[in-house]
Formats: sequence, C-alpha cells, structure tokens
Amino acid sequence: MTSTMLSDLGRSATRAPLPGRPVTFRDARIEMAHGAGGKASRRLVEGLIAPLLGMTPGEPLTDAAAIEVGGVGMALTADTFVVRPLRFPGGSIGDLAVNGTVNDLAVSGAGPLALLVTLVLEAGLPTALLEAEMRALGAAAAAAGVAIVGGDTKVVEHGKADGLYITTAGLGCADRRLQLSARSVTAGDRIILSGPIGDHGITVLLARGDIDLECDLRSDTRGVWPMVDALAAAVGAGVRWMRDPTRGGVATALNELARDCRLGIAIDEERVPVRDEVRGACELLGLDPLHIANEGQFLAVVACGRADEAVAAIRATPGGEAAAIVGEVRTEPARTVLAMSGFGGSRVVDMLVGDPLPRIC
Amino acid sequence: MTSTMLSDLGRSATRAPLPGRPVTFRDARIEMAHGAGGKASRRLVEGLIAPLLGMTPGEPLTDAAAIEVGGVGMALTADTFVVRPLRFPGGSIGDLAVNGTVNDLAVSGAGPLALLVTLVLEAGLPTALLEAEMRALGAAAAAAGVAIVGGDTKVVEHGKADGLYITTAGLGCADRRLQLSARSVTAGDRIILSGPIGDHGITVLLARGDIDLECDLRSDTRGVWPMVDALAAAVGAGVRWMRDPTRGGVATALNELARDCRLGIAIDEERVPVRDEVRGACELLGLDPLHIANEGQFLAVVACGRADEAVAAIRATPGGEAAAIVGEVRTEPARTVLAMSGFGGSRVVDMLVGDPLPRIC
Repeated sequence: MTSTMLSDLGRSATRAPLPGRPVTFRDARIEMAHGAGGKASRRLVEGLIAPLLGMTPGEPLTDAAAIEVGGVGMALTADTFVVRPLRFPGGSIGDLAVNGTVNDLAVSGAGPLALLVTLVLEAGLPTALLEAEMRALGAAAAAAGVAIVGGDTKVVEHGKADGLYITTAGLGCADRRLQLSARSVTAGDRIILSGPIGDHGITVLLARGDIDLECDLRSDTRGVWPMVDALAAAVGAGVRWMRDPTRGGVATALNELARDCRLGIAIDEERVPVRDEVRGACELLGLDPLHIANEGQFLAVVACGRADEAVAAIRATPGGEAAAIVGEVRTEPARTVLAMSGFGGSRVVDMLVGDPLPRIC
Repeated sequence: MTSTMLSDLGRSATRAPLPGRPVTFRDARIEMAHGAGGKASRRLVEGLIAPLLGMTPGEPLTDAAAIEVGGVGMALTADTFVVRPLRFPGGSIGDLAVNGTVNDLAVSGAGPLALLVTLVLEAGLPTALLEAEMRALGAAAAAAGVAIVGGDTKVVEHGKADGLYITTAGLGCADRRLQLSARSVTAGDRIILSGPIGDHGITVLLARGDIDLECDLRSDTRGVWPMVDALAAAVGAGVRWMRDPTRGGVATALNELARDCRLGIAIDEERVPVRDEVRGACELLGLDPLHIANEGQFLAVVACGRADEAVAAIRATPGGEAAAIVGEVRTEPARTVLAMSGFGGSRVVDMLVGDPLPRIC
C-alpha cells in the first residue's frame, strides 16, 4: 500500500534499472521515521533492505510484484499492519488488513484471488478483541469477494506486541484491460484522484486522544477494486499508472511517480478534495493534507483525451462520487511535484520527511 | 510449517468436510500455549479464527493452500517468525524465515517461485543487527533458488516488539509428479523421516541461557526442497503425504495425519533418529523428542513397495543421510499414534499439550 515499502520494489526483469545516485543508509539505529513511508523509509528500504535481499536496485516502485506462471499474469503483495489504536471511527486493524492488501493488488491492475493472514498475538489479549478483529477481517474479505485461504498464528509474551499485528499477503490475477507502467506516462496526461484525502490519517491521529480536538470524521478504509474495475472498463489502456496514497500520502506517491517517469507533476491545489475537518486539523497541527495517509483512495494517470470518461466512471461507482482531475504531467521541471495555488503561485511538494503520524496502518 | 497453524487450513474445494465434533474455543484470554503449535493452537485456530475468516471447517490440515489459476496449479503459504533469541547456533531468524516458508511449499509438493518479506522493527534496533538478518534472508533465498520479489517494513515503538518479527509469504508451483492427500494414505504405507529430530527446538531452548546445560548442538534449519525433489523423482505418486514437523514436533504432525486419514500410525521408537545431545536434554527437562520442533526435516508417507527406493533417494541428497523408515500406517487403532518400544510395549503419543517451548520459530 504505502509507496516506499519493500513491496514497492517488485522486480520487472524486462526493464533496465533507472539511472540515479544509489541510496545509502547510514543511521546506526532504527527510528520511528523509518516506518512512516517517507524519505527515511525509502532510505532504509533502498539503501539497506532491498540490496541485501537481492532485489534489483533502482527499479520503479510498484505496489505488488508482477509474476508470470505458465503464461498467466499474476500480482503478489504483502503488508503488515501495526495501526494504533486497533479500532477507530470507520474501521479497525481487521478491515484495514484486507483493504490495504486488496488495494495494492487493485492499483497494480490485478483483481484479488486469494489472501493469507498471519497474526502476532500478545499473551493476555482478550479473546473478545481478537474475535472482533477476525470478524472484521472476514467481513472485509467477503465484501471484496476474496477468499482467505491460509495463514499462521504466533503468540509472544505480554508487552512484546501491542495487542496484535496482522500481516496479509495477497495473490491477484492481472487484468488484461490494463497495461500500467510509470514509463508509459507522457506529458499532457491527467492526474485523477478518487476522492477526499486525509480522512484515514487524521481519524487515527484523533482516535489516539493525544490531541484535544473533536470532529466527526471517519477513516476511508475501503476496497478500491470496484472503482478500478469501472475505470478499466471505461478507458482500458488509457490508464497509465495507479497508486493508493497510504503512508506518506498523495505527495509521496506523486514524488515517486515523478522520479519513475522522469517528468514533472503539477497539481491544482484547489481541485484536490479535502474535507473541512481534515483541513482544519492539518492547519492546527502544522501538517499538509498531501502528506496524510488514505486507505480508500487511489491516484490514476490517464491519457488526456480519456480523462473525462475516466472521472465519470469512477464517480458512478460507490465511494468514487468525489473523483476529480487534480493535475497533469509536464515535461518540466522533471522529477518534481509542483502544487499550483489559486493565485497563480506554486510550491514544490516534497515527499514526507520525518514522522508526524507513526503507526497509521 | 507448523501443523496447527492457520496456514494448515488451506481450502480444497473438491473435498467434503471431515466429520467430527466441532472445536470450540472458550478461553477468555490468549496465552503463550495458543502459539505453541499443539492442542491449544488447534483450538484457537479451528474454534475461533478459521470460522470467522470464512474458512471451511473440518478440512484436512495442509501446509499451504492449493490455488489453480488459468489451469496452473500453485501453492500459497505464509508464516510469521518470532523466534527468541534472534540468533542461535546454526541459524537465525533470517534464514529460518526463508526455510520455514520454502519448506511449507515443499511438503505441499510445490517448488518455490517467489517470496515476499515483511518486517516489524522495534525502534532502537541496531542497524547492524537488521543488516545481518537481511543478509541471512538473502543468502537463504539464494540457496533455495527463490527470488524475494517484495514486502513491507513497519516500525513500532521501543518495547512493542522483541527486536524484529519477520513474515514470509511464498508462492510455489505444484509439482506434477506428486499427488499428495491425507485421504490417499492406506494401511501398510510406510512412514519415512528425513533425519534426526529435535535439533532446532533444543538448540533454541539452550541458546536462551535459562538452562545450565552445555552441548554441541546446532539448529537443523535448512530447505528440504532438494530432498523432496529427489523423492519425487524416485517414487513420484508413490508419495501420499508429507509434512515438516515444526512446532509441536513429529508427534503433532502424525496425530494430524491420523485424524485426517482416519487410520492409525505406529512408529518404532528405536528407529527414530535422535542425537544423544537431544535425548539427554529431553530427559533432563522432562520433554519428549517427538514434541520438539524441527526446521530442516520432513515426514513422508510412501506406498509400502516404494519405501526403500524413497529412503535411498533422500539419503543420497545432502541433509538426508540419516533418513529412515520409522513406522507404518495401520487400520487400528484409528486416529491414534502409537510408539512401539524395543521391548514389545507401546504407548499412545498425543499432540503437544501446553507450552514447553515458546517462540521456537
């Protein structure tokens, strides 16, 4: 789901590595920021983990690895969920664990076939809590139309986990209507966003009770496959690239796109849907909504001439009513994301730096 | 890997559910024993988790789920590793995480195609430790000839994990030479064990330093696919069933077989290879070697007339030199494992009860 995860370093053997400076990791210890999905996460994964695991450096980031077996195209992805608190308005770790993994498959252009679920349980965990989360997992999988076919259960001593951690692995079948690649993105292509951003991150932040702010906000946790399916039916190969902007938010996802397609991304800030509650909380907390995690939205790059059809298809699907064209791809400035304000000004939008929102998924 | 895990409840849609009493889970809280791979684990998984996740009750236990996509048979499995300590003589969590998952595929009759790796890191973890484990993971994957194609990295606060937890998901390609099913097991079939048991469990227990006992023992952590491959080449469909006896040991694996094939299993205790160090430690600690976890052995049921060829094939493969026929399948007493002693006596061998060895993998 999040764009700087290890999962986002799927191999694609037919492509040459991207040029660029090799990333190095020099921190002596792991810090919370290394899990936040921003620049520090990228340094850890690209500078240390991926090379030692034998993964090809400099590959474009994707949400799931593409695998071909006996002529059948498949996608494979895995995510671990450590969200705190376990339950929050609109959702819980159980449905997050299904939706996050199914969405990684969806934005890779794959419909979900099967899920595996593994659990780390802390000794002393009330059975009622585990039962509620297993029920949420089962319900989310049923809603997504995907079978849970296996998994694993481990128990650690009290104090060695925070209630429970869930890992979900997903296998998907590549949808032949879609041919996605950051390298097929062209100047003039439009950036489409499926709906309002920041709901999940701000909801979880407020659910922790550390901040004295009340508002009626719910996580957007939701499977995006029905929207992706509608998009594929409407414009097919007119879709060039997709991503679900989870940890690190829209800003991080678009910066990765800019890097991978070697072009510039310009977004019109006034067109980016943001609820008043999210905007207000971000202003109070000094956060940028573009950096806040989402769990039920996706970004798509669509060929210019097909963008209106694409938006109409997403809007006609439940959850996609607020879909909008929010920007475009430009030749300059290359590898940069610019946000244009209503007053003709612009600012560079960087990836998430630091760790304003730990354990958001 | 371990036989009472959630992963062992793979669907096999072509089979009717097994008859038998439904398992119920009534414990109010999760305890360490629920993760030990024995009876308590089975109650948790079969009585609570699997039904809520929509998995078919009463299905035979398997180590990986069988999936067919576009006519291609595949196996899918996932395991989480929480072993303590992270390093022990002969191995570490990194190579355990690869071998455990690759072995689950192997005993399901599938060669490994791709792995995903997800990490839960504790803030404050020394980078050098993470680096060593990523190196171990990469080396084990290279040795098994399997590519790591993706994953995820999360960080939790100091004290919310025990250094690091690793989850590996594996996709394998079903080997057409093998047709494995507990229901194809027939009275007269032979039980084959690939080598000495208990090395992993006793090594990890001693590595914790809680017990004042020194001996020169190493974990058997190892990929068993080369042995399985040799077995398949030698006797093909003569192999009826396989299992890697991890958590819960040989006793638990054979009890599950007895339940699933509805026959009796008789093992000749004198033929079960056990090193003197393991036997001695077990005597001192009041443990049965048949309950101790292994990470580089497998059990196979082979048609009577092919058993000698099968043993010869395993013995000719590195790691399998001590393979032996250790027992046979009988009609009576059904659903029971008996150990026959050298003096003509016999004892019932039950599944692991309680939790003598927490966090062994």
